[in-house]
Amino acid sequence: MSTILVIAPHPDDETLGCGGTLLRHKDNGDDIHWLIVTEMTVEHGFTQERINNREKEINEVANLYGFDSVSKLGFPTARLDTVPVEKLVQQIGETIHRIRPDIVYLPYPGDIHSDHKFVFESGLSCTKWFRYSSIKRILVYETLSETEFGINPSNIKFTPNVYVDITRYLDQKIEIMKVFKSEMGEYPFPRSDQAIKALSAYRGATSGFPFAESFMLIKEVM
Amino acid sequence: MSTILVIAPHPDDETLGCGGTLLRHKDNGDDIHWLIVTEMTVEHGFTQERINNREKEINEVANLYGFDSVSKLGFPTARLDTVPVEKLVQQIGETIHRIRPDIVYLPYPGDIHSDHKFVFESGLSCTKWFRYSSIKRILVYETLSETEFGINPSNIKFTPNVYVDITRYLDQKIEIMKVFKSEMGEYPFPRSDQAIKALSAYRGATSGFPFAESFMLIKEVM
Amino acid sequence: MSTILVIAPHPDDETLGCGGTLLRHKDNGDDIHWLIVTEMTVEHGFTQERINNREKEINEVANLYGFDSVSKLGFPTARLDTVPVEKLVQQIGETIHRIRPDIVYLPYPGDIHSDHKFVFESGLSCTKWFRYSSIKRILVYETLSETEFGINPSNIKFTPNVYVDITRYLDQKIEIMKVFKSEMGEYPFPRSDQAIKALSAYRGATSGFPFAESFMLIKEVM
Amino acid sequence: MSTILVIAPHPDDETLGCGGTLLRHKDNGDDIHWLIVTEMTVEHGFTQERINNREKEINEVANLYGFDSVSKLGFPTARLDTVPVEKLVQQIGETIHRIRPDIVYLPYPGDIHSDHKFVFESGLSCTKWFRYSSIKRILVYETLSETEFGINPSNIKFTPNVYVDITRYLDQKIEIMKVFKSEMGEYPFPRSDQAIKALSAYRGATSGFPFAESFMLIKEVM
Amino acid sequence: MSTILVIAPHPDDETLGCGGTLLRHKDNGDDIHWLIVTEMTVEHGFTQERINNREKEINEVANLYGFDSVSKLGFPTARLDTVPVEKLVQQIGETIHRIRPDIVYLPYPGDIHSDHKFVFESGLSCTKWFRYSSIKRILVYETLSETEFGINPSNIKFTPNVYVDITRYLDQKIEIMKVFKSEMGEYPFPRSDQAIKALSAYRGATSGFPFAESFMLIKEVM
Amino acid sequence: MSTILVIAPHPDDETLGCGGTLLRHKDNGDDIHWLIVTEMTVEHGFTQERINNREKEINEVANLYGFDSVSKLGFPTARLDTVPVEKLVQQIGETIHRIRPDIVYLPYPGDIHSDHKFVFESGLSCTKWFRYSSIKRILVYETLSETEFGINPSNIKFTPNVYVDITRYLDQKIEIMKVFKSEMGEYPFPRSDQAIKALSAYRGATSGFPFAESFMLIKEVM
Repeated sequence: MSTILVIAPHPDDETLGCGGTLLRHKDNGDDIHWLIVTEMTVEHGFTQERINNREKEINEVANLYGFDSVSKLGFPTARLDTVPVEKLVQQIGETIHRIRPDIVYLPYPGDIHSDHKFVFESGLSCTKWFRYSSIKRILVYETLSETEFGINPSNIKFTPNVYVDITRYLDQKIEIMKVFKSEMGEYPFPRSDQAIKALSAYRGATSGFPFAESFMLIKEVM
Repeated sequence: MSTILVIAPHPDDETLGCGGTLLRHKDNGDDIHWLIVTEMTVEHGFTQERINNREKEINEVANLYGFDSVSKLGFPTARLDTVPVEKLVQQIGETIHRIRPDIVYLPYPGDIHSDHKFVFESGLSCTKWFRYSSIKRILVYETLSETEFGINPSNIKFTPNVYVDITRYLDQKIEIMKVFKSEMGEYPFPRSDQAIKALSAYRGATSGFPFAESFMLIKEVM
Repeated sequence: MSTILVIAPHPDDETLGCGGTLLRHKDNGDDIHWLIVTEMTVEHGFTQERINNREKEINEVANLYGFDSVSKLGFPTARLDTVPVEKLVQQIGETIHRIRPDIVYLPYPGDIHSDHKFVFESGLSCTKWFRYSSIKRILVYETLSETEFGINPSNIKFTPNVYVDITRYLDQKIEIMKVFKSEMGEYPFPRSDQAIKALSAYRGATSGFPFAESFMLIKEVM
Repeated sequence: MSTILVIAPHPDDETLGCGGTLLRHKDNGDDIHWLIVTEMTVEHGFTQERINNREKEINEVANLYGFDSVSKLGFPTARLDTVPVEKLVQQIGETIHRIRPDIVYLPYPGDIHSDHKFVFESGLSCTKWFRYSSIKRILVYETLSETEFGINPSNIKFTPNVYVDITRYLDQKIEIMKVFKSEMGEYPFPRSDQAIKALSAYRGATSGFPFAESFMLIKEVM
Repeated sequence: MSTILVIAPHPDDETLGCGGTLLRHKDNGDDIHWLIVTEMTVEHGFTQERINNREKEINEVANLYGFDSVSKLGFPTARLDTVPVEKLVQQIGETIHRIRPDIVYLPYPGDIHSDHKFVFESGLSCTKWFRYSSIKRILVYETLSETEFGINPSNIKFTPNVYVDITRYLDQKIEIMKVFKSEMGEYPFPRSDQAIKALSAYRGATSGFPFAESFMLIKEVM
Repeated sequence: MSTILVIAPHPDDETLGCGGTLLRHKDNGDDIHWLIVTEMTVEHGFTQERINNREKEINEVANLYGFDSVSKLGFPTARLDTVPVEKLVQQIGETIHRIRPDIVYLPYPGDIHSDHKFVFESGLSCTKWFRYSSIKRILVYETLSETEFGINPSNIKFTPNVYVDITRYLDQKIEIMKVFKSEMGEYPFPRSDQAIKALSAYRGATSGFPFAESFMLIKEVM
């Protein structure tokens, strides 16, 4: 039995990136924990209604996964570049010290949304073995609609080396994504049924499964 | 009206990599030409029957595309590492001088099949502007079942920057692939209906089309 | 006829990077638009005289190109790291929605001037097809005196794949650069006649033209 | 219990690269198998005495590890560039079909010895899931005296992401290396006691163990 | 006789990264200068006692090296992301104009500590030949406990190409590190005797010396 | 006084890549040595006249530089892929043992001509410190007409970090190139007066000299 922590810049990243894998972890008896780094706030232009809706969605999604805990850092959405890195590191670090995960899932730093980069970098800072000794495995997930648009030519691109069979969990992953109604759209919009299936099938055909999620292994110690 | 040359290490690479794009070129009134670099031979262990079948398949496929010419260099399949590079360069070069293409499609050098690397490298040698002045645009295609398995860690991976809408041509592309019966398999085998569709849909969702083929632009002069 | 948008962190980047190409677009009947992201301000230490001069230069340059519009976002020069990314994205996004360009030219994110990185990243965020549907082609230009000094060893370097013949426009490009008097210097200073010619000739010899500008294609959809 | 296959271009690569890890696998009850790709031959200038010695060394080393099988392909040492890739692929493929490993260890393709590149590439060709279904995990090891000298500037360098604690096995690893007497030298020669310890300690300090071996994960399916 | 400037984000980086090399420079009669970019402050949570201690350590270390000057910019530790880049550039630039170094040592931008990235980028901005004409050689050092943890997958990793024999200076380097008592720990902690020795021995075995420091050459003009 | 060895796949590569630098070395009193790896032969389709001419050119060029020795390995031009690597390594190694250079200049492995790759790789194999102890510095030169056409997308591109002022030697370099009459052409052909000057000026403007040659430092020990 392992303890799993997925760090999501925004709610839905955890689902797009590793929804199937989280469900499989849960099925295997692992503890799964959700750390949401940002939140919508009125002062950054979100209506109270949208904020309330988002809270409900988070609760519903948490139940659907059976998360063992949900932590929210409450930093402003789309504004992580204005938050001192040290504060991000400190708060992610506290969560890691509290949860003591074996496996951590992080977003890809090359994603087009700059929040993803800051979450990755701060998260990675909280994985040094001599400060955060519980961690055995760090993986980066791909977030459909962010990762494939992260085409900065001075970066190396996302190149998966870990594939997880999520055939049994794909439908449930898509059901969970649909809870985040406002994030989904009509195909060929990337956050859609069909696009999620297509990516899973492509990753699956590369790894021998009908549907798979893929990751980059950042570090593993054994 | 443009003149298009696709260079295929083996018959079917042109279809997997840019079948839809070739059909669209033809539809647009472009001339399309097919250069097949290798062939099966009895001395390398292929039966005469298989060789004859392959010839029939090539003819049928050529008709389905409406290729304006088919050239065959006849080098031994899966053995391009044993052919002097100079011979490959010379023969590809002669074809290019004859056809005088504006646009050339090459396989990706990082593909797992070493024939693809040798075809790319020899093909690229035949694109220097002062020897092959017709060429305006060189693109690399991705070959499902080869490109995504080319995971040499010392290489940079395939990262597409050109997307072609093939929505109208996807069915026809798959029909053509089925002519190469022995190459197709059951999903999640990568050379299957469903895998081809999945990749096309994933590339499509990245570029705003239901189905797309993707390429790396190597060089364009204008 | 196409609609072209060049995004310049500072006035003169558009000319160093793609002056010849812009003149050629105009000559071809394309609409060309100039988005200048920063401006000099008194509170950041520029004299009012210098600021006034700069305005005159911008007007003169706009006339010389025949820009169909000039937009200025007015962010502080050399200070884009202090501007929330979200604000940059929003304002660039509004400009793109207004102009609806087919082709966008962006600075290289690995340039040594950090303003270039922030303009690239914000600009790229405004190219997702489902929010900015007009864009068909995104290119990155090289800014002499910035790009070749951007030698961060953890980055991949500028590697051009698109070359544009600017032989007919080189003299005019250099004339326009001379409008920005204070930016030019004595050779071997990089922003000088001779250095601009040298780079153009080097790119030209690589592509078969006496003088060329070179670009990295980031994304093209067709 | 897992089945492990280490593919060594030359005897001693398996020990330098993953000697400690192999001993730990054996200790855990895993089956371990050794595939040696090349051999010294009289026609390539080795004396019969040296060849006989090497055979004895191989036997002794096989006993010290407790290898469950040793396979030798007998290709000429330092001459893999003259062997058709297809032959290498075929023979490595047969071994993999016979052994059916879960985990495969390969040399790094960027190593300065070209034999390592050919073994990696041929080995990788034998890992496609639809032909070699047993394989769940593929890792690349670093070979002291080869990997750190593989400084081709057009390649990405070895960057480990998997660390294995070999503290309990380091002495035994060094004892085994000493069986290959002619390969060892005086420090600072890289194939020496002290250099092996230094690298293990450096990798250890990065991963939280006194001594570790490090690897690049190429692919894992689960 | 040369003038050397080492730029350290925090005191101890200069020693971890190039302590032996600095001692050797001094021994050769070169002038050596130390620029410390950050400092601990009460308002960022450091006790006055710790701050006083750090000052004493800096003085002691400066004496042990025989630094010809020590400059402190006093920016807040672990907070360089909140300092406008322009201010960093300006102050580093002034130091460079005052010292007029031939050789500059900078931290690696891919180090996990974000302060290192900002110091590198600002430092690099102060090396353009037409503004800082004294500089002939720019090198990046590796900081044990930061560089090997900088595993952002979208970056190219530290790959040394310059090796300096520090065999005669290793003991002294370690003695100096011990002045920074609070930074050192028990092996396998990376900032420990044994880890420093291991890395030096590994770099030494790669370059033919018992102990070496390694660097990436960023730029040299001659 | 240093001993310099330039390794040229074909005569003229040494001049295009480091002609100015070699002249400067000679001027400084260094010994300079020329190793030519290939030769034209009748059996590979060169006329005896052309071969004789080439010999005369080599002699004339050797005199113009004042080379202290010229070594020829006599491998077939454009056919190095058919030569066993071991033979290349052995013969280059013998030359290095005989000359005992401090500094070695090699062609870039990503050059489009495959001979360059094989010479680089074989040359690099002859630089391990424990076999070739004289070497202190290894540099890669850029060969106009080969390096800028080496655009394999799976490779990292040539990115210079060493610049040598050749202002005093540029004219002489171009005079020497003209000895190889058949290799030169009309601008914008890359092997022309004007293109050589343009590249030198571009590299110069990057490094503060009117004209410069640029290199990648592969390894330096000191």
